[in-house]
Amino acid sequence: MSLLDTIAGRAEAGTLYGIGVGPGDVRYLTLRAAGLVRSVDVVGFFAKRGLEGNARRIVAPLMDASRHELRLEYPVTEEVPVADAAYQAEIAAFYRRAAESIAAHLQAGRSVGLLSEGDPFFYGSFMHMWRRLDRDFPVEVVPGVTGMSGCWTQANVPITWGDDILSVLPGTLAEDVLCDRLQRCEAAVIMKVGRNLPKVKRAVTGAGLLARALYVERGTMDGQRIVPLSACDDERGPYFSMVLIPGQGRQL
Amino acid sequence: MSLLDTIAGRAEAGTLYGIGVGPGDVRYLTLRAAGLVRSVDVVGFFAKRGLEGNARRIVAPLMDASRHELRLEYPVTEEVPVADAAYQAEIAAFYRRAAESIAAHLQAGRSVGLLSEGDPFFYGSFMHMWRRLDRDFPVEVVPGVTGMSGCWTQANVPITWGDDILSVLPGTLAEDVLCDRLQRCEAAVIMKVGRNLPKVKRAVTGAGLLARALYVERGTMDGQRIVPLSACDDERGPYFSMVLIPGQGRQL
Repeated sequence: MSLLDTIAGRAEAGTLYGIGVGPGDVRYLTLRAAGLVRSVDVVGFFAKRGLEGNARRIVAPLMDASRHELRLEYPVTEEVPVADAAYQAEIAAFYRRAAESIAAHLQAGRSVGLLSEGDPFFYGSFMHMWRRLDRDFPVEVVPGVTGMSGCWTQANVPITWGDDILSVLPGTLAEDVLCDRLQRCEAAVIMKVGRNLPKVKRAVTGAGLLARALYVERGTMDGQRIVPLSACDDERGPYFSMVLIPGQGRQL
Repeated sequence: MSLLDTIAGRAEAGTLYGIGVGPGDVRYLTLRAAGLVRSVDVVGFFAKRGLEGNARRIVAPLMDASRHELRLEYPVTEEVPVADAAYQAEIAAFYRRAAESIAAHLQAGRSVGLLSEGDPFFYGSFMHMWRRLDRDFPVEVVPGVTGMSGCWTQANVPITWGDDILSVLPGTLAEDVLCDRLQRCEAAVIMKVGRNLPKVKRAVTGAGLLARALYVERGTMDGQRIVPLSACDDERGPYFSMVLIPGQGRQL
């Protein structure tokens, strides 16, 4: 057994693992995450209908046909706004069923590793399983490299220097809220850009930050694209897209 | 060669690697970081006089006596405030000499891996080498799990839900600035707590957030300590200490 395998360790029976799989490149899984992906009895992941699942695609080089997979497929909600009560009820019911199917494996003594893009406790859907299962089962959460770290690394820009304050803003916020918060930032990351891209660009422009803003699509993955936000006029970005505004703090 | 070693890959001649070594537990190095720590010709790291060096300690299980190490020792500046011009000049001269010693190895065709706690482009001292060497040498930056991800994982608290805004605030900021920014946060992480601990606690209290605040010392490392900030009256924390204020956003 190699030193890396020894350090990575293996899964224990009846335990739920929230496995951060990092920003996209399989090399950015942690040793612990890689050890668990290869040793849990059941590899669970969320996916949209008809798609492979982003987290599942990231770990593909670590998988083989003998592994037991638990695909948790989101209900089709593409056209319903997130704030809608019907949407929220439907997603909550889906999460409840997903937690029940995971619990059944755990009760049977099987270990379950639930894949989470980036870091599980940072806007991760794993959190919705954690809050339903943490009291009743042993749970280990494995932190991961966040999508934003992957993106600023690929853009080759340090994000915070010295005493810079960093704000992480969901692109789902209203334009005036985004614009107001951006005006109080030294450095910023805007997540969940996707279909909010034109609004995000208007907010960044309104805050006087367009000249410093970078748009990153599919950072660390195939098809990566990094351009100044000023040069991006797309009507929407893919799921993996964000805007970076690097800080300009003390450089010694 | 094991699958993990194959994915991790090896270093190339004459290349500078900025290696994020994560929050403290060696299992939280990425595969790429672990592969590079074991294959670069020179393992470089910053350290304070008389101490092992935090990043060097994290990778100890991956090292052996045959490796060539480059210890970059900070000048003794313990009693001089960071804002002081003399301090800044001394640190800048130190970084210049450190970059020269790294450049000499690179020019001789040796690969150099500079260890960086957490993520290299997130408040990392590697950034001071990167800006001096990136134009003249091939550089690869390897993102890492941040210290804050390690801390909220160990504290077993998701940090951001739904549309929560996260602010990352250096504890070195003035108390009134900290307090003002905290009042505009849904979720917050206060870094660089150390000797700023009493000031940070006053600012959190002033912002009305004391009941939600957690104090984390040496997260993911030996000697880890996690307590409500309200229960911590220490005059100063160690280098690895931070305050977490978890978000309370949408939980479906």
